[in-house]
Amino acid sequence: MKITIVQFAPIFGEKENNIEKIINYIKSDSADIILFPELCTTGYFFTGRAELSPVAEYREGEFCSEMKQLAVERNIIIIAGFAEKAADKIYNSCGLFFPKPEYNSIYRKTHLFYKEKFSFEAGDTGFFVVDYKEWDIRIGTMICYDWRFPESARSLALQGADLIVCPSNLVTDVWQNVMSARALENMVWLAVSNRCGTESRNGEELVFKGNSAMYDTYGRQLGICSADNEEALTIEFQPHTSRNKSFNEFNDIFNDRRPEYYK
Amino acid sequence: MKITIVQFAPIFGEKENNIEKIINYIKSDSADIILFPELCTTGYFFTGRAELSPVAEYREGEFCSEMKQLAVERNIIIIAGFAEKAADKIYNSCGLFFPKPEYNSIYRKTHLFYKEKFSFEAGDTGFFVVDYKEWDIRIGTMICYDWRFPESARSLALQGADLIVCPSNLVTDVWQNVMSARALENMVWLAVSNRCGTESRNGEELVFKGNSAMYDTYGRQLGICSADNEEALTIEFQPHTSRNKSFNEFNDIFNDRRPEYYK
Repeated sequence: MKITIVQFAPIFGEKENNIEKIINYIKSDSADIILFPELCTTGYFFTGRAELSPVAEYREGEFCSEMKQLAVERNIIIIAGFAEKAADKIYNSCGLFFPKPEYNSIYRKTHLFYKEKFSFEAGDTGFFVVDYKEWDIRIGTMICYDWRFPESARSLALQGADLIVCPSNLVTDVWQNVMSARALENMVWLAVSNRCGTESRNGEELVFKGNSAMYDTYGRQLGICSADNEEALTIEFQPHTSRNKSFNEFNDIFNDRRPEYYK
Repeated sequence: MKITIVQFAPIFGEKENNIEKIINYIKSDSADIILFPELCTTGYFFTGRAELSPVAEYREGEFCSEMKQLAVERNIIIIAGFAEKAADKIYNSCGLFFPKPEYNSIYRKTHLFYKEKFSFEAGDTGFFVVDYKEWDIRIGTMICYDWRFPESARSLALQGADLIVCPSNLVTDVWQNVMSARALENMVWLAVSNRCGTESRNGEELVFKGNSAMYDTYGRQLGICSADNEEALTIEFQPHTSRNKSFNEFNDIFNDRRPEYYK
C-alpha cells in the first residue's frame, strides 16, 4: 500500500485557491492514501471566531462534498484538515474520505494549541479508528499538538490502528523525536503531514517547520520532506505488520502492559 | 542540585566485588544524588530462580543496610538496582536511600523484559514518587524496559515527579530518542543510568549499550556517557523547574490533558 504525504503552504483565507491546489495534488497522485496538513483549506493563524467563521464549513459543505466524490472516483483515501462548522461551533477537524463513503469520518482535534483556543472548540469526537474493511487497513487520526500527549497515539493504537495520521501545522522542532517515539512505543506506522510557509497576524509571525515524514513500526524515519518547500512524499508500507506487537520471543508491548498500575 | 550517574559493568554473580565498587563510587563522589544501574550488585543475565536466589537479598540485608548507612553518613540520596527477596519471591527492584531514612523506599520493576520472566516476579509496588521534603525534591523511579510504556513516566509525572530516574541494563539503542520524549512529554528531568559490558550465558551474549544520560524538561540531553566505558557523569539541575508545566501563555501540558478521551 502507498501513502502520499503532501506538504504545502495554504494561503491564509484563500479557500478557493487552496482547494484547487488540493484537488490538483489528488488528481496527479497515484498512491492509495493521500494526506494533507491541518487546516489545509483555510490557513492557520486566525485571531478569533469572527474571522474564522466565513471560511469554516459544515460537513455537508463544498469541500467535504468534493473530497467525498474524489475519493470514490479515484478509489483513494483522502485525509485532510479543515475548519468544521457544527451548529454554533467551529472545530479544528480532519476529514477522512474513503472509496466507500459509508466509512467517511471526521475527527475533531482534542488538544488545542496556543491561540486556537480563541477560534475553535476543543474536539468532542475523541480518538477513534476507522477499520476500512475493503482494504483491511485501520486508520487512526490525531492532529498536530495531540502529538505531545502520549495518550493520543496510545488510545489509537489500543483501538487497533495500523496507521496513525497526523495532519499538522507544527511551529517547533521538538516533535520530530517524539513522533518516532510514538511509532515505536505503539508499533504503528505514523505519517505526519506538516505545512510549510509562514503566517503573520498582528505583528506575530508563525513559521511552519515542514519536515513532514513517515515512520515505521520501529520508529525509523522512512522519508522526510524539506523544512520549507512544497512537496509530496510517497512511501510504500505494509499496514498489517503493526498487528504483531511482539519484538522478541518473550515480549509483546501490549500483552506486557499493566494498566492496573497506570495513573 | 547535582546528580551523578554511574555507568559501570557489574561482574556477574560477584556481589562482594560489585558492592565494593559501588561503595567506592559513593565515597569518591560529591553530588547530592548518586544513581547506579539496574541489578548493579549481581549482574543481569540469570537463567532462572535457582541461580538468582543465592545473590538476591531481603530489604533488611547487607547491601541495603550499607546503602542506608552511607546515605545518612554522607548526606546523599543513593539509588541503585538490586535483586530483592521478599518471602518466596524475587523482584527486580530499585532501592532509594535518603539522608533521612524514613523516606527510604523500594520500587519493583513493573514490566519484565525478555528472560527476566524466568527469574523475577513482575513488580507489585506500582509507580510512586518520593517527596523528599528535606530538600524539596520529588523523585520517581522506573527501571529499564519500563521506558517503553509511556504510562510509566506519565504515572510518575502525574504524581508530581521532578526527576525520574531509570536504572537500566539496556541492550538496544532504540530507547535514546524515547527517553528524550519521556522528559519532554512530561516536562520532567530524567536520568538514565545504564550499564556497559557484556554477559554470555548458554551461548547467548547480551551487549549492554552504556550511553547513560541526563535529559532536561525539554528533552534536551545534558550529558551522555560513552557506549562501553565505566564512567561517572555529574550534572547540575534545578528540580523545581519541572513543576511549571506551561510552555507558552496558553498551554500547560497537564491542564491541557483530556483524560475523558484516553483509553
